[in-house]
Amino acid sequence: MTSPSIPIINHFVALIKVEPFENSVRIIEGLAEAIVGSLGLNVVNKLSHAFSPQGVTLVYVLSESHLAIHSWPELGTIHVDLVTCHSTTRKQFENSLNSALAGFNLQSIFITELGRLRGRRL
Amino acid sequence: MTSPSIPIINHFVALIKVEPFENSVRIIEGLAEAIVGSLGLNVVNKLSHAFSPQGVTLVYVLSESHLAIHSWPELGTIHVDLVTCHSTTRKQFENSLNSALAGFNLQSIFITELGRLRGRRL
Repeated sequence: MTSPSIPIINHFVALIKVEPFENSVRIIEGLAEAIVGSLGLNVVNKLSHAFSPQGVTLVYVLSESHLAIHSWPELGTIHVDLVTCHSTTRKQFENSLNSALAGFNLQSIFITELGRLRGRRL
Repeated sequence: MTSPSIPIINHFVALIKVEPFENSVRIIEGLAEAIVGSLGLNVVNKLSHAFSPQGVTLVYVLSESHLAIHSWPELGTIHVDLVTCHSTTRKQFENSLNSALAGFNLQSIFITELGRLRGRRL
């Protein structure tokens, strides 16, 4: 923390391996809705993009920052990036994923929680 | 890495402290344009949201994943989140920020590069 004037930022990332799944925006929207619903986050705007030949990017702007999901259906891979000023815990994020992924044939979830940002101070 | 079938994902996060700045989408768009221009990334869609009374969220969907920027002008704080399948290095990300922030009164930049995602494997 460089000063007390930095807002609270919780940042969670998940790399999810599931069985290869259908290439559709609808499926990724379903995931996003389940995650924000479970965490009590508020969506203020949405954007999705379907790549050719496959893959979806979905971004929700939240009143508490953003949720971005990328999918590689042919590789059975989903990447979830949640940045939030909400008091979300890692356990809550994990639970929201487990619940959102109930309809998938899940292989693994690797979750990273970013702590305080460290690096080169100019 | 859970298997060789996981796509390359480079993920960089920067927490930037500058002097308090003007509350405008235009300023954050300028930052985003400079970053994607410097890194040679391709924008496929954009979304911005101006919060009340202040603060901007800007998201660019890239053909190589996404760039999201959040600003707290009153706190002189900018958060940059770049997820990319492009072969971007930390040094290139750092250089793109330094160049993008040329017009700001910069106090500090703290950069995190996410390595391989680790966590609980189900």
